[in-house]
Amino acid sequence: VDCAATSHTIDALLLALRRGAGIALANKQPLCTHLSSFTTAISPLHRARFRYESTVGAGTPFVAALHRLLASNDPPHSIQGTFSGTLGFLCSGIGEGRRYSEVVADAVRLGYTEPEPRDDLGGVDVGRKALILARTMGWKLEMSDVEIEPLYPSHLSSLSVPDFLAALPSLDADYSARHQQAQKEGKVLRYVATLQDGHCNVGLKALDAESPIGRLTGTENMVEYRTAIYKEKGLVVQGSGAGGEVTASGVLADMVELAFTIGKEIEN
Amino acid sequence: VDCAATSHTIDALLLALRRGAGIALANKQPLCTHLSSFTTAISPLHRARFRYESTVGAGTPFVAALHRLLASNDPPHSIQGTFSGTLGFLCSGIGEGRRYSEVVADAVRLGYTEPEPRDDLGGVDVGRKALILARTMGWKLEMSDVEIEPLYPSHLSSLSVPDFLAALPSLDADYSARHQQAQKEGKVLRYVATLQDGHCNVGLKALDAESPIGRLTGTENMVEYRTAIYKEKGLVVQGSGAGGEVTASGVLADMVELAFTIGKEIEN
Repeated sequence: VDCAATSHTIDALLLALRRGAGIALANKQPLCTHLSSFTTAISPLHRARFRYESTVGAGTPFVAALHRLLASNDPPHSIQGTFSGTLGFLCSGIGEGRRYSEVVADAVRLGYTEPEPRDDLGGVDVGRKALILARTMGWKLEMSDVEIEPLYPSHLSSLSVPDFLAALPSLDADYSARHQQAQKEGKVLRYVATLQDGHCNVGLKALDAESPIGRLTGTENMVEYRTAIYKEKGLVVQGSGAGGEVTASGVLADMVELAFTIGKEIEN
Repeated sequence: VDCAATSHTIDALLLALRRGAGIALANKQPLCTHLSSFTTAISPLHRARFRYESTVGAGTPFVAALHRLLASNDPPHSIQGTFSGTLGFLCSGIGEGRRYSEVVADAVRLGYTEPEPRDDLGGVDVGRKALILARTMGWKLEMSDVEIEPLYPSHLSSLSVPDFLAALPSLDADYSARHQQAQKEGKVLRYVATLQDGHCNVGLKALDAESPIGRLTGTENMVEYRTAIYKEKGLVVQGSGAGGEVTASGVLADMVELAFTIGKEIEN
């Protein structure tokens, strides 16, 4: 079980797979190193022993739903989803007309962000989840191929956390203008990952307020798969895809399924 | 693969399981015979070879999501869902203020109902799906324990199909009154299965128009699982859970997973 937050476990994971072990991951980073590592892990020899539901949307079965679509030869031609409860909270707040800096401060105070809030606001975490879904579909992408729009300008990167938070009001007018423009068009701002035509991008988009993702509020996450069969409205999975409990439940379900798979091998 | 529509396959299915075969079902009826048959099929000896995703919501992964909740020891304390595209279409039509008889006639004309529309309107098909989810959770229920509200009175049961359709306008005033009452309370009518406290019931209910199920339109289906972890908003899965293509995709995904499981046994 790998619940760390580093890419350095990848070699140990591949070694464990070669030795016949089963693996359950909540740690996204080893799946975002070189494509060849990912490809090895999900090769026919290993894939039944390699489970990573909690890397995307915690225990909410985003990955399991995708695996079933792939098993039925109905691969998504596009995927759109929100993969950050923190950024969902932020978008909801902005949608209520609140100031960007004020909603970020609330998120920090409520413990919705990492201790370093730029880990969430930078969008890299969402980008990693998008990359994992893309690679699961067989798209040959590296992390550098994922376009990411951070929610703060690069000149705020090197500040201390208190100085960073103190500088945020300088961004309020810009996000407020984007919210008002979206509202005029019947839309709402959502921080989404979009996978389409072999490309992956992550950023703040204005979506139809009446669309499934537009209707999301608070820290809920959702993914919408469009396929040849689920074409008009997509296959939608929604849940509180963040937090310790939900993440642990996904790892536990993976472990139980693994015990069952590996148990069968031992029986035989 | 059992895509029949009869309970008579149950003995053959159990025999096949005993002989080590894998089974993928779209046929609900063998899962709704005596509880002991279901219990045998999902016993630890057989369950990895016994797959029935398409019996509930076609290929939309309602069953897979439930299995993962159970694997993580986070069983639902309640489930609510719509499991009939036909009755979803009917509820949407009534919600637009149209006459019950008129919407049923449209559904028949568009091929959304079985040739015998009472097979849909009677609610037994939805009741079967509710029973399968309940039994999957280990609830010890028989089909006779599922409370079902049919959408026509019993004195219309023995009429021919054309006479039945001709008699439906006599029900219009009643359904129109229920719709108007719901609307006054900010609610909409939905034909839902509800599983709670060990009981299963199926019928027309007035639900909050802003709830996930209340927002459903047309033939889409949805299930909402409430658990200890997914408590406030539930885990929601939504998709076009009806129709030949979606049903076939669920059976195919089950077959691929089976081939993989059984393939592993042969390898060893």
